[in-house]
Amino acid sequence: MLVFESDYTEGASPEILQHLVETNKETLVSYGLDKYSSSAKEKIKKACGKPSAEVFLLTGGTQTNQIVIDTVLAPYEGVISADTGHVNAHEAGAIEFTGHKVLTVPHENGKIMSSALTKYLETYYADETHEHIVRPGMVYISHPTEYGTLYTKDELYSIANICRKYDIPLYLDGARLGYGLMSRGTDVTLEVIADACDVFYIGGTKVGALCGEAVVFTHANAPRHFFSSIKQHGALLAKGRLVGVQFDAMFTDDLYFRLGAHAIKMADKVREILREKGYRFYIETVTNQIFVELTPEEYKKVTENVKVGFWERTAAGNTVVRFATSWSTREENVEALRVVL
Amino acid sequence: MLVFESDYTEGASPEILQHLVETNKETLVSYGLDKYSSSAKEKIKKACGKPSAEVFLLTGGTQTNQIVIDTVLAPYEGVISADTGHVNAHEAGAIEFTGHKVLTVPHENGKIMSSALTKYLETYYADETHEHIVRPGMVYISHPTEYGTLYTKDELYSIANICRKYDIPLYLDGARLGYGLMSRGTDVTLEVIADACDVFYIGGTKVGALCGEAVVFTHANAPRHFFSSIKQHGALLAKGRLVGVQFDAMFTDDLYFRLGAHAIKMADKVREILREKGYRFYIETVTNQIFVELTPEEYKKVTENVKVGFWERTAAGNTVVRFATSWSTREENVEALRVVL
Amino acid sequence: MLVFESDYTEGASPEILQHLVETNKETLVSYGLDKYSSSAKEKIKKACGKPSAEVFLLTGGTQTNQIVIDTVLAPYEGVISADTGHVNAHEAGAIEFTGHKVLTVPHENGKIMSSALTKYLETYYADETHEHIVRPGMVYISHPTEYGTLYTKDELYSIANICRKYDIPLYLDGARLGYGLMSRGTDVTLEVIADACDVFYIGGTKVGALCGEAVVFTHANAPRHFFSSIKQHGALLAKGRLVGVQFDAMFTDDLYFRLGAHAIKMADKVREILREKGYRFYIETVTNQIFVELTPEEYKKVTENVKVGFWERTAAGNTVVRFATSWSTREENVEALRVVL
Amino acid sequence: MLVFESDYTEGASPEILQHLVETNKETLVSYGLDKYSSSAKEKIKKACGKPSAEVFLLTGGTQTNQIVIDTVLAPYEGVISADTGHVNAHEAGAIEFTGHKVLTVPHENGKIMSSALTKYLETYYADETHEHIVRPGMVYISHPTEYGTLYTKDELYSIANICRKYDIPLYLDGARLGYGLMSRGTDVTLEVIADACDVFYIGGTKVGALCGEAVVFTHANAPRHFFSSIKQHGALLAKGRLVGVQFDAMFTDDLYFRLGAHAIKMADKVREILREKGYRFYIETVTNQIFVELTPEEYKKVTENVKVGFWERTAAGNTVVRFATSWSTREENVEALRVVL
Repeated sequence: MLVFESDYTEGASPEILQHLVETNKETLVSYGLDKYSSSAKEKIKKACGKPSAEVFLLTGGTQTNQIVIDTVLAPYEGVISADTGHVNAHEAGAIEFTGHKVLTVPHENGKIMSSALTKYLETYYADETHEHIVRPGMVYISHPTEYGTLYTKDELYSIANICRKYDIPLYLDGARLGYGLMSRGTDVTLEVIADACDVFYIGGTKVGALCGEAVVFTHANAPRHFFSSIKQHGALLAKGRLVGVQFDAMFTDDLYFRLGAHAIKMADKVREILREKGYRFYIETVTNQIFVELTPEEYKKVTENVKVGFWERTAAGNTVVRFATSWSTREENVEALRVVL
Repeated sequence: MLVFESDYTEGASPEILQHLVETNKETLVSYGLDKYSSSAKEKIKKACGKPSAEVFLLTGGTQTNQIVIDTVLAPYEGVISADTGHVNAHEAGAIEFTGHKVLTVPHENGKIMSSALTKYLETYYADETHEHIVRPGMVYISHPTEYGTLYTKDELYSIANICRKYDIPLYLDGARLGYGLMSRGTDVTLEVIADACDVFYIGGTKVGALCGEAVVFTHANAPRHFFSSIKQHGALLAKGRLVGVQFDAMFTDDLYFRLGAHAIKMADKVREILREKGYRFYIETVTNQIFVELTPEEYKKVTENVKVGFWERTAAGNTVVRFATSWSTREENVEALRVVL
Repeated sequence: MLVFESDYTEGASPEILQHLVETNKETLVSYGLDKYSSSAKEKIKKACGKPSAEVFLLTGGTQTNQIVIDTVLAPYEGVISADTGHVNAHEAGAIEFTGHKVLTVPHENGKIMSSALTKYLETYYADETHEHIVRPGMVYISHPTEYGTLYTKDELYSIANICRKYDIPLYLDGARLGYGLMSRGTDVTLEVIADACDVFYIGGTKVGALCGEAVVFTHANAPRHFFSSIKQHGALLAKGRLVGVQFDAMFTDDLYFRLGAHAIKMADKVREILREKGYRFYIETVTNQIFVELTPEEYKKVTENVKVGFWERTAAGNTVVRFATSWSTREENVEALRVVL
Repeated sequence: MLVFESDYTEGASPEILQHLVETNKETLVSYGLDKYSSSAKEKIKKACGKPSAEVFLLTGGTQTNQIVIDTVLAPYEGVISADTGHVNAHEAGAIEFTGHKVLTVPHENGKIMSSALTKYLETYYADETHEHIVRPGMVYISHPTEYGTLYTKDELYSIANICRKYDIPLYLDGARLGYGLMSRGTDVTLEVIADACDVFYIGGTKVGALCGEAVVFTHANAPRHFFSSIKQHGALLAKGRLVGVQFDAMFTDDLYFRLGAHAIKMADKVREILREKGYRFYIETVTNQIFVELTPEEYKKVTENVKVGFWERTAAGNTVVRFATSWSTREENVEALRVVL
C-alpha cells in the first residue's frame, strides 16, 4: 500500500532526531527556558527579519490556534475566518471552548478575499445594533489554506491593510508553512509574512518535527503574561527542550526550507502523474496537498493501492480525496503511483 | 412620533402589574420557591397538556437561551441553528461564551427546513473524521422566527422526528410565542409545541411582562441540578416572585393568549395599511412583526413620522425596516399610520 | 409565624412600586437607554460625588459579581476574597464559571484585614515560580460582609492603598450597602466608598427593590464594550426600564438611605431584645443581620415561633441562626419577638 | 554545579529514546491510533490488572489534570483537593479556566485525610442551602503528593470508600507515580491504585519520558467522546506515536519501575548524606523528593554548589528547598554532595 494520506505519518526528519539524540543527556532548565529553545527563537527571529519579534514554542496546531486566538482577542470578541478555515471546521470547537465565536466569511478556494472581508466589516459597523453582535477582533487565515492554496503577496497585504484600517490583528496559521514557502511561483516569503501579519505560527509537526509549532508575535506584541496563559491552557511542557531542540535543528542550515522543498518536488511529480492519467483536480494547488475528484470506480481503483485522505463527498456522488506529500516522501513511492493509478 | 419599533417599549400589561401590586406586601420565600411561582408553573403545565413537564422561570431571552443550551448540551457539543437564528446572530456570543459552537444551516424565511437539517446531520455522520468536528447535540428553532415567520405543525413534527432519529433534543425559542400562537391560520398550538419539542420557552418580556421567560422541559427531562446551574450562570433572582407573579397572571384567564391576539389584530391592520399604500413586504408574515423594504425616499418619509426598527441594508441600497405591534399597541396609533405613510 | 429569615421576602418599597406603576404606560427605548435609567445614573453619580463615574444597572447580586469580576480581570487573573466572601462560598461557582479562580485569605469577622492582604501579595511576588500561580488581579470585599460586619473608613483606605501599591482594582460588593451606610457608628459613607474603591455596586434587591443592582465604576474606568459584555453574559434586560425606574425612585429624596435606616432601627431593637433575653451573639454586628448561637433547646423554642435563617452548625452541636430585618420590617413584629423568645 | 533541582532536567531514558529512533521511519496512522500506542495501552492495562480499563495518552501533567477533571465533572461541579494540591496551587488556574472550582480541604503532609474529606462532604450535605454552593463532584489526590509523601494502602481505600459512599469518582494524579511505587516500605502498588481509583494517570514526563502521561479510566468509565474532548481542549497530537512509542518502551521489561527504583536508590543516599551532615528535614519523605529547611547561612553554602528547587520561605526566615533525584541521577553526583554540603 502506498501511503499519501497526510504529511504526519512519519516521525522526525533525521537531522531533527539527531539533534534530540545528541542533546538528550544534557541537563537543561525546564519550561522552555533552556538554551536550545533560546537559540531556536533567535534563529526564527533572524529568518523572519524581525529582531523585535517575540517567539513562543507550543506543541500542536489546534493548541496553538486556541491559545493565540484566546489571548489576542478580548473576551467579547470573535475571530473572522473563511468558512473552510481549520478553526471553524475541524478543531472540535476548540475556539468556542475558550468563549469566542468564529465569524465566517465565504471562502474562495480556501482563501478570504479582501472584498469579502471588507464587506463583513462594513456590514458589522453599519449595523446600528452591532453592540448586540460579536465584535470582530482578529482575522484568521491559513497559508497554505486547508485547500492547499496560497495567498499572493498582494492578497496578503491587501488583507493586512484592511486589518490595520479596522485596527484588528491579522493571524496566519502556518501549520504547513514550509510547504507554502517552497511552492513554485509564490512571492510570499517568511519575511513577507512576518511583515504583513501581527502574529503567525511556523508549523513543525507537519514539516518534519515530532511535534511543535513556533508562534511569532511580529512586533513585540505578545499578550501580557503569555507564559502564564500557556500554562493556564494546559500547554506548558515541563521539558520545553523537546520543541526547542527540534526548532533549533529546523532553523539550522535552512533545514525547514529544504524539508519543504523536497515535499513540493514530490508533489509536483504527483500532480504530473495524476494529470497524465487523466484525473480531475478538484482545485488547482501548487503546494504539497493535491485534491482530486474521483468517480466511484476511480475511487475503488485508487484506494485499492493508495491510502489517500478522505475529503468530502460531492453532490454528484463523487469523492474528493487528498494526496499529500511531505519531507519524508520517497521518490520511488511517487514513481510507483505511475503504475497503480 | 408613532412608535412601532419593537414589542418591548412599554411596561407590563395592566393585569400583570395589578397582580404585582396586590401581592407586593406578602412575605414569600425566595429564589422562586414561592406560591405564585408554583401556581404559575402548574398553570403552564396545564396549558401545555404536560403534567410531567418541569417549568423554570428565568428573566430574559438571551439568558434563557444561554442556560438551556449550555445545560442540555454536553460540553463538547454544539447547537444547530438557522444562520439567521437569534443565538447565532444577535446574542453577542452568549452561546460561545459558555463553550458551545453554533452550527448553522441556511435558513428559509428564517426557518430551518427539514431537508437542510437532514443534510447537515447526514453529512456530519458521513464524514469519517467527524470526531474532529463539533458534535451536533441539539436543534434550536425560534417560533415565530427572527423574520416573523411560523412553522406549520407538519414542519415542526418533521424536524422533531429528525431530532428523535438522531437522538438530539429539539429546543424552541418562544420569545414571541404568544404572538405566534395567535396568528391567523397557524395550526401550531401550545400543546403541539409541548409535544414536538423537548424543551421550549414561553416568552414573557415581549408579550406583556416586565421581564420573565418560562422554560418548559416537556417530559421530566430538566438537566440535573438545574437550580444550581441557574445560579452558576448568574441568573437566579433572590425575589423569584417577580417573575412568578407575572406568569401567574399571564396564565390566568388566558391573559397570555389575549395579549397575543390583540397584537395580531393590530398587526393585521398595519399589514393592510402598508399593502394599501403600496409598500413592498420584504417577507410575508402573519405575526406581529412586519418587514418592509424601503427605497431611500420611502425610508426618509416613513422615519420622519414613525419610529421603526432598522433591520438591514440591501445590496440594492434599500433599507429593510420592521414594524412591530404588541399587546400594548393602540388602535388609534395604527389608524394614524394611514395618514402619515 | 414571625419572619426574620432574610431581607428579600417582601416585594418593593411602596415608593418604588409607585414609580413603576406611574411610568408603566410610557413608551421608552429599550436596553437601559431610557430616560429613567439615565436619571437614576445621574442621581447615583451625584450621591457618590463622582461626576466621572460610569454607572450600569444589572439585575441581581451573583450576576453583578460575575460580570464585574470577569470583565475587570484579565483572563489569566483571579480575585482575592475573604474565605467567607460570597463569591467564594455561596455563588455556585459563578466566578469560576467565567474562568477565574477565587484566591482566598482568612477572614476576620468576615473582613479582609490589610495584614492578611499584604501577606498574600508579598508571598505571591516573593515566590520565584509565581508565573505558574494564578495572578491576583483584583480584591473583592463586601460591605456589610456576609457576617454583617462593617469596615471602618481607615480599614477601607488601608486596603485601597495596598491595591494601589500593587496596581490592582478594589471591588466592593454592596448587596446590603444601604444597611451598612445607615448603621450606627460607621464612618463609611457612600462618598468614602466611591473614593476608596475602583468599582462597587449599590444593592437594590435587598434594600427595597424587586430586583436590581447599580454598578459604579468610580473613575471612568468601565471595561471597554461593557454593554456587549453584559449581553454576552446573558444579563441585558430588553426592558432596562425595570431597573432604571426603581433606582430612579431609590435615589430620589434619599429613599435608599431612609429604607436602610428603618431596617437598622428595627435591628437595633431586635438586638436589644435578644440581649435582654440572654441569647449569645455569635458575632457582634451593627447592621441589619444578627447572628446568635442557639443550643438545641433554644433552637427548638425559637424556630417554633420565628422563621430565622440557618447559618451553620457549630462543633459544639449548637446552631447559628440569622435574624435579618429590612426596609419592610414592621415594628409590631419586632415587639412580638419579646413575647415569643 | 551539581543539579538536584527537579526530575525533568534531562531528556529521555536511553531505552525510550532508542525506541523513538527505531520506529522513526515507520509510516503510522495519526492521532494516537497507531500500533505503538495500542501496544502501550495494552501493556498498561495488563500492568494495572484491569482488562476493562480505558487508557488515553496525553502530553503533560497540567493538561491531563485539566482534561480529566473537566470531562469527568458535570459543568456545575467542583473538585475536592488538598489545599496544597497541584491543581489548586501551581497550575495557573487551568482548572478554573474550564469552569470548575477547586474545593480545598486542609492537607496533612500534602495528603487528604479521610476525616477531613468526610467532614467536608458531611458539612456540604448538612447545609440546607447547599444548592447555592459548588457541588463536590470528584476527589483529587496526588501520589506521591506535592510534598513527596505517600498514601498507605489503607488510607487510599479509606478515601475510595468515602468517594463510593457519596458516589463521586476518585482521581489520582500520578505525575511521579513511578517514584512512589518504588519507594521503600510502601504497600501501594499499581494494581492497588487501579482498584481504588476511578481514574488516575501514570506520569511519563517526570519518570524518564520526553513528554507524555497515560490516563487510565479503570473500569470502562471514560467520558463519552473523550477523543473529541481531547481535541477540543487543544491536546490532540497529530503524531500521537510520540507518546505511544515512549509508553510502549516504558512498559516493556518493567522499564518504568526500574527507572523509578533508581531514583529512589539515589534519593535514599541523598537523605543519608543530608542526615549525616545535620540538615533538618522539613518533612519526612521516602520518595525522590527531599525537603530541607535551611538557615540563611546554610542556604548560601548549599546553593553555591548545588542547584536545588526553591520551595518556600518560612516565617522564621529560613528557606525550604527541594532536592530531587530522578531516573537520570548519577551516583557520582550524589557522592559529590558529601563533599560540598
